[in-house]
Amino acid sequence: MDNFSYWNPVRTAFGKGSVSQLPNLLPREAKIMIVYGGGSIKKNGVYNQVVSALKGRQFSEFGGIGPNPLYETCIEAVNKVREEKVNFLLAVGGGSVIDAVKFIAAASPFKGEPWSILSEPGIMLNSAIPFGCVLTLPATGSEMNANSVISRASTMEKLHFSSPLVYPRFSVMDPEFTFSLPPRQVANGIIDTFVHVMEQYMTIVNNAPLQDRQAEAVINTLIEEAPRVVAEPKNYDVRANLMWAASNGLNGLLACGQKEDWATHMIGHELTAFYGIDHARSLAVILPALWRYKRKDKHDKLIQYARRIFAIQSDNEERAIDEAINRTEDFFNSLDVSTHLADYGINASEAASKIRDRFDQRSVAFGENADIDGAAAYEIIMTCA
Amino acid sequence: MDNFSYWNPVRTAFGKGSVSQLPNLLPREAKIMIVYGGGSIKKNGVYNQVVSALKGRQFSEFGGIGPNPLYETCIEAVNKVREEKVNFLLAVGGGSVIDAVKFIAAASPFKGEPWSILSEPGIMLNSAIPFGCVLTLPATGSEMNANSVISRASTMEKLHFSSPLVYPRFSVMDPEFTFSLPPRQVANGIIDTFVHVMEQYMTIVNNAPLQDRQAEAVINTLIEEAPRVVAEPKNYDVRANLMWAASNGLNGLLACGQKEDWATHMIGHELTAFYGIDHARSLAVILPALWRYKRKDKHDKLIQYARRIFAIQSDNEERAIDEAINRTEDFFNSLDVSTHLADYGINASEAASKIRDRFDQRSVAFGENADIDGAAAYEIIMTCA
Repeated sequence: MDNFSYWNPVRTAFGKGSVSQLPNLLPREAKIMIVYGGGSIKKNGVYNQVVSALKGRQFSEFGGIGPNPLYETCIEAVNKVREEKVNFLLAVGGGSVIDAVKFIAAASPFKGEPWSILSEPGIMLNSAIPFGCVLTLPATGSEMNANSVISRASTMEKLHFSSPLVYPRFSVMDPEFTFSLPPRQVANGIIDTFVHVMEQYMTIVNNAPLQDRQAEAVINTLIEEAPRVVAEPKNYDVRANLMWAASNGLNGLLACGQKEDWATHMIGHELTAFYGIDHARSLAVILPALWRYKRKDKHDKLIQYARRIFAIQSDNEERAIDEAINRTEDFFNSLDVSTHLADYGINASEAASKIRDRFDQRSVAFGENADIDGAAAYEIIMTCA
Repeated sequence: MDNFSYWNPVRTAFGKGSVSQLPNLLPREAKIMIVYGGGSIKKNGVYNQVVSALKGRQFSEFGGIGPNPLYETCIEAVNKVREEKVNFLLAVGGGSVIDAVKFIAAASPFKGEPWSILSEPGIMLNSAIPFGCVLTLPATGSEMNANSVISRASTMEKLHFSSPLVYPRFSVMDPEFTFSLPPRQVANGIIDTFVHVMEQYMTIVNNAPLQDRQAEAVINTLIEEAPRVVAEPKNYDVRANLMWAASNGLNGLLACGQKEDWATHMIGHELTAFYGIDHARSLAVILPALWRYKRKDKHDKLIQYARRIFAIQSDNEERAIDEAINRTEDFFNSLDVSTHLADYGINASEAASKIRDRFDQRSVAFGENADIDGAAAYEIIMTCA
């Protein structure tokens, strides 16, 4: 097991009616700005519940954060925060809204060019505006971590930053708020969570059996609950389990003492940046291809995964690995998510070249061995046609 | 799944050499008091490492905290804290030292009679002295929670309190610090962790599959690592896994959305208060007996436990439950821990009467159905001869 530091100070208020705890969670005299997305919260009643809970508080609003939240939109919000001297943000939405709020929180008091928060990894942040979340879409785990991913339309870039300053002060998580989600978003959320877990798990067997099993716990939960959420979209417990699984998939605990990969995400981000493909779908395409490409390095963990998740007992280890990867693809497909670029209208060889060039240009390489460079990404993407 | 709130703000610095992070974790201008136990840290080098890391800091010491830390000793420490105007405590030890420090932290600024912190559940605490931990014995999870158990010699009482004010600010966890632990303490630590997990798991199947599997993850880790720590006491990874398992066994996560029991602990505390039996040994005696007594209420969870932990496949459910409970006892026995009161020189019928009378006198009842009252405790203890 590797050395690690773990710290996660997010307060979670989980369950039916938990929005009623907002008045106690928000600071007393704050000047609040509610940030939300395309307006679905106004249709499903979440907006009204939040506004009721804010009775007597001073607050303004900023709507219109889209999926793969845009830098350009966030900058508008930053200007509003500065003008109105907002000192507490309330994200009401899914991972996109929360990621946007993290960036707004960090950029508003930032003295330099805000883009450098994303483009210069490790840049020093001295402060951020505190914020809380009301979660409406389980997927990214953003409600329980300090990561944010932002896209820039003008340059077709999608970059991330992390800082302990952008842990949410609290996250209100009411599974009932997810009853009205479109099936496409539910499927995306399940796959996003699945791949988050795998980025922290599918590397080497690192003598961290508890963390391995904690990861497998999330994966088993997703595999069991996924068909149920399709069949019974208003089943509270199923929604609750998917919501809590998403938070536990990326709250820092699974990475403790482990090697991490994240190359699937890095390639996936580029696919989204260039082609606008849903984040989760980009991951569903890349993950199985990357595993096949790296099957030697990941051999022992792939075997453990095959045995424990799919109970594949074949003595032929290579066949067991093939079957495990195929069954992972089957799982994504069962959620109506294709694992082939052609199905998204993307030409594999064009995408492979573009992403290779971008990785080369930035001189970056990802994965637990830092060997997924431009050339490797090219090879992987070419198998995803 | 039940509604829940989860918050755990402890910073953990885990791994070889992590004591070197102490200077960054401690507040700059603090007046520190190091609190420790019987002096083993002076023999195994931990004390010297801590003192080196404190170079240039202002600190005093308070040693002599014993197992089942005494109220009387804590009050001496409280007086010293008040006299010396200490404003940061550093617990260096296992759960007993950390529990003592939590009480000292809460009692030092407390205006009323300190005993009421323990004897009046829910009493309002307004402040506590901040503190950090250097863990030397994995067992109680105290390094990652806000609970404390204190004994009073004069009245043979053992009581607990909890408050978000007594979360450690940080916990330094170096598995190498546990290499020199006597086998008895290692065994106790494993059993203590095991039973903590079970108090949060062995109730009903509450539609919380992720939390169930997170609990099973800790149990599987304990069962796998226990024989290895006996065979290879200097195996770093084994020590690391046991240490992290203990913290994860009682850091709040496993209880999220679940029913909890804790009757084994409440009966066990009385056994320790009356007879001085090691905490973990009291739990090893009571847990299997309590499960047999409550096997109807716990039926579904016992079956799940039998299937998942011991892979018992028998179609006869009652036989599967019997086997699962027997194998739990076997596990405790494999650590050289007896599950019979006679082996500790305790007369079951005397203990049963004393504890029944005490529960009756306090009008208390425990367990997920709040039905383990004096009479039930009597029945359970009578089967532990």
